[in-house]
Amino acid sequence: MTLVGFVGLGNMGGPMAANLVKAGHKVRGYDTSSGSLEQAAGTGVEACTSLAEAIEGADTIFTMLPAGKAVRTVYQGTGGVFAAAAAGALLIDCSTIDVATARIVADGAERAGLDLLDAPVSGGVGGAEAGTLTFMVGGPADAFDRARPLLSTMGRTIVHAGPAGAGQAAKICNNMVLGVSMIAVCEAFALADRLGLDRQKLFDIASQSSGQCWSLTNYCPVPGPVPDSPANRDYAPGFTAEMMLKDLRLAQDASNASGAATPMGAEAAALYGLYCNGGNQQQDFSAIFKMLAANHKDKAR
Amino acid sequence: MTLVGFVGLGNMGGPMAANLVKAGHKVRGYDTSSGSLEQAAGTGVEACTSLAEAIEGADTIFTMLPAGKAVRTVYQGTGGVFAAAAAGALLIDCSTIDVATARIVADGAERAGLDLLDAPVSGGVGGAEAGTLTFMVGGPADAFDRARPLLSTMGRTIVHAGPAGAGQAAKICNNMVLGVSMIAVCEAFALADRLGLDRQKLFDIASQSSGQCWSLTNYCPVPGPVPDSPANRDYAPGFTAEMMLKDLRLAQDASNASGAATPMGAEAAALYGLYCNGGNQQQDFSAIFKMLAANHKDKAR
Amino acid sequence: MTLVGFVGLGNMGGPMAANLVKAGHKVRGYDTSSGSLEQAAGTGVEACTSLAEAIEGADTIFTMLPAGKAVRTVYQGTGGVFAAAAAGALLIDCSTIDVATARIVADGAERAGLDLLDAPVSGGVGGAEAGTLTFMVGGPADAFDRARPLLSTMGRTIVHAGPAGAGQAAKICNNMVLGVSMIAVCEAFALADRLGLDRQKLFDIASQSSGQCWSLTNYCPVPGPVPDSPANRDYAPGFTAEMMLKDLRLAQDASNASGAATPMGAEAAALYGLYCNGGNQQQDFSAIFKMLAANHKDKAR
Amino acid sequence: MTLVGFVGLGNMGGPMAANLVKAGHKVRGYDTSSGSLEQAAGTGVEACTSLAEAIEGADTIFTMLPAGKAVRTVYQGTGGVFAAAAAGALLIDCSTIDVATARIVADGAERAGLDLLDAPVSGGVGGAEAGTLTFMVGGPADAFDRARPLLSTMGRTIVHAGPAGAGQAAKICNNMVLGVSMIAVCEAFALADRLGLDRQKLFDIASQSSGQCWSLTNYCPVPGPVPDSPANRDYAPGFTAEMMLKDLRLAQDASNASGAATPMGAEAAALYGLYCNGGNQQQDFSAIFKMLAANHKDKAR
Repeated sequence: MTLVGFVGLGNMGGPMAANLVKAGHKVRGYDTSSGSLEQAAGTGVEACTSLAEAIEGADTIFTMLPAGKAVRTVYQGTGGVFAAAAAGALLIDCSTIDVATARIVADGAERAGLDLLDAPVSGGVGGAEAGTLTFMVGGPADAFDRARPLLSTMGRTIVHAGPAGAGQAAKICNNMVLGVSMIAVCEAFALADRLGLDRQKLFDIASQSSGQCWSLTNYCPVPGPVPDSPANRDYAPGFTAEMMLKDLRLAQDASNASGAATPMGAEAAALYGLYCNGGNQQQDFSAIFKMLAANHKDKAR
Repeated sequence: MTLVGFVGLGNMGGPMAANLVKAGHKVRGYDTSSGSLEQAAGTGVEACTSLAEAIEGADTIFTMLPAGKAVRTVYQGTGGVFAAAAAGALLIDCSTIDVATARIVADGAERAGLDLLDAPVSGGVGGAEAGTLTFMVGGPADAFDRARPLLSTMGRTIVHAGPAGAGQAAKICNNMVLGVSMIAVCEAFALADRLGLDRQKLFDIASQSSGQCWSLTNYCPVPGPVPDSPANRDYAPGFTAEMMLKDLRLAQDASNASGAATPMGAEAAALYGLYCNGGNQQQDFSAIFKMLAANHKDKAR
Repeated sequence: MTLVGFVGLGNMGGPMAANLVKAGHKVRGYDTSSGSLEQAAGTGVEACTSLAEAIEGADTIFTMLPAGKAVRTVYQGTGGVFAAAAAGALLIDCSTIDVATARIVADGAERAGLDLLDAPVSGGVGGAEAGTLTFMVGGPADAFDRARPLLSTMGRTIVHAGPAGAGQAAKICNNMVLGVSMIAVCEAFALADRLGLDRQKLFDIASQSSGQCWSLTNYCPVPGPVPDSPANRDYAPGFTAEMMLKDLRLAQDASNASGAATPMGAEAAALYGLYCNGGNQQQDFSAIFKMLAANHKDKAR
Repeated sequence: MTLVGFVGLGNMGGPMAANLVKAGHKVRGYDTSSGSLEQAAGTGVEACTSLAEAIEGADTIFTMLPAGKAVRTVYQGTGGVFAAAAAGALLIDCSTIDVATARIVADGAERAGLDLLDAPVSGGVGGAEAGTLTFMVGGPADAFDRARPLLSTMGRTIVHAGPAGAGQAAKICNNMVLGVSMIAVCEAFALADRLGLDRQKLFDIASQSSGQCWSLTNYCPVPGPVPDSPANRDYAPGFTAEMMLKDLRLAQDASNASGAATPMGAEAAALYGLYCNGGNQQQDFSAIFKMLAANHKDKAR
């Protein structure tokens, strides 16, 4: 049994902490939202009224926060993790944030004599609840070995991507490909519609050919071919357009800062930006098909 | 045994005709290039000195031509297929051409009382030689049933995509996704390089995650992860950048003509245009990685 | 006085023909729409019930048609202009069509021993009515000299752009820059809004600096800075989004056919495609600002 | 006479400080490069060996630094401007940096009881030497009034864009339009070349029409039409591709951070990224024409 401090108990952090409790660990949790805190308490998490209380004496401290700024505050702020964590505590940040901040915080951990891992996840709320997340982990190899048993109670695939920041880098590189290929698949179906090519036929052909990709064969953005894809439930998420936009913007930030040129990634960020600004943030990210396939003339008939 | 007329005996048509000969059919071939004609003769094709001679009395006529204009000339021209084919002959056009021309030619066949299929292929010269091509076929169902045995001697996957033009539509929709996802994968590796993320690590993670796509897992554009991908043989094709550009432009022509909006497909066409105009037409299409990952500063050090 | 045949009397052709009448010429007009024909009759045009009647014996024949296909039919069809025009007649096609068709039709004219000019216009319905159009003219220099006096009754700026097709080429190159720069200006105002920069301030600075362009200083897409721009009358056209999309697609067709790589032009075509498919074809083309500046979160507050 | 401290004496800061000296002000300068410092001394600037020495007792402190990080260090660091400036000193940051940092530093100034302006410039090294820069200024109106006389010794156009950060916002919005329209103009010439349309003809038409923009009429990217544009001196800068890329990336950072969607700006940043990564950072930014117009086939003839 490990004494765990868990900071950030929202849609993702809540079920992750619950899985740690189920696995027999003692979990002290904290969240600035009292609603999230209460909900976590219902799953066996010990609700704490301050960050300090949650992390005091913990063997391992998890954080699951919305953005790099919050991560810096929680770790580097007065009374934050670096100041208050027990000697030898293992720190695991599961937030998806920019690579630059991940590395700054990792430097801070090193100066504080603490092991820290960046360990962003994929798999969404469903994966968090089912304990089937994928963890992409950056940081020292021995810290990764220490973390693996705990991560395994929350996820199915645990990969060591490299040194500090490599977890974040792997996630944004993967999700950049995902965002681009989703739009490409949507465009292909939209073009097929215009050309009178049956959607199921296109699916049957491309899924067995060089156009095959996860966006097509596991998450098909039109109803029918993949029965459990969000398109079959009116695009209820799943993974929201807003979350995809966040990851695509992190990828663009990393490109700009590192000097890479990623034109397709930039185009995907711009298109998801247009889609979200149009009021569709909470739609599943595959619902961008509706924007790309719009055909007002047909509707007007 | 079928009496086959085969028009267009280049890099693709030549080995396709040879496979028909091997399967025991009598094949009369024609090409405007005497070199191609001689080469075909060496594989058992009966070399004809005119289009008329090649198609006279043939049960089935294949065409494998570089562009829509050539297809129109061969089918609709004076002494062309529509004028000279035997009554009841089955016509199969394996060229990759624009959907509009495919439909115009199909209309011409109908008026001439002949069955015609558009049957573009994927699989490249290697697939043509090995007899493992994929045929995406548009046209009447009964004509498809007649064609299947012959196509099976040249290909492994034979799909009926729908009515006239559907074969061409399926091919350009598939290849548009392919072109876009290849660039996305290249950008992801280029960004990973800049962020210090190991290429093999990115491959291991993305190939098991939502970024998985054929361009990554079957045709990886960086040396290493997929041993038989062109990146491991200095980007010798495979499928040339020029061929990819041709297909992406056909997709854009179809988008423009049909009123679809395909921004990612347009971006891919523009980037392959820049790449080819820079002198790289004969490189494998995955070699666009070199343009996207260029980093002159590093090289100059 | 010249005997003029005028084919195509719609929104543009109608007022152009009327200006020829006003200038003292005898104009026989034809249109497939009886409404357009009646309206033209009201301005002094002699309404003809067939193409043949309109062009018979005419010294100069004008055509103003919606697309390349119609142009080919009118010139090359049975009983068309090439067959029925008087010897020595001057042919002037004012339609905006693809460069390839313009050149095919010019070749046809040459074979028929007739002088033909491609002479697309800019300036919109307003310019057609006011006689202030710009004509961009391709074709032989002596034909241009013959045409100039008549064109001057309908336009203010008459430019000889070069040989056959050069008029169309000039128009699509100009309008590609226009479409791209309009979107760029819209993006700049959308970004300024988000950054809290006053729109008038941005206008004052950019219009005196290196961001100056016609889209900003003559046709500003936000209300205020340029009082007579369509943004000040709820984006009533002016030049519709649909017309801009048509020209951008012609530019992309020309790029694809000629092997040019025009990524910005392609992006502009895709964005206007999305905008029009969303039901905004009849908005002024500057109204794409509304799509680019959308901010649902703000609206929902 | 004012006692001026000037920090950052590079290609831009050096000649700016020299113009202050010429106008009769006493200028104490500092730069981390001893070469820059020596060069400034040659123009009458009093060379200081530390930041502290340069700013001590100054009435007005100018900074001209390469990036936001340097600005934060110089203003907020130990012994920096906020700590060491005389009470009542006016602070003017002429660096081009991200809007977010500009606002953070402005907040710091307010807390320190000091007036600060963000005052990025356009006009390049030539404008700095000639004293003809444009200053886009953000900050309090009374501080702007205090600054104007000094700015007028270095520039010709001095505009108050709004509150803190508005100077930076105005500059990146303007330069985003500039970068996009430059590429659009290059694409138009590249397409004209392919279509056989004479460059001068395109210039003559578009410069009098709706495609008119500063990139075309004041800085034409092909040799000929505008005799003093960099294209006529083999693209010697002027304004380098690297500087344009920096500004376009700042615009993208601002878009991402503020939630704007700027697809054309993103495309321009990506294309300039590809161009610079190919080794062309020091070319004039109009030289991207060479990438967009490349046509290997023609060269190989």
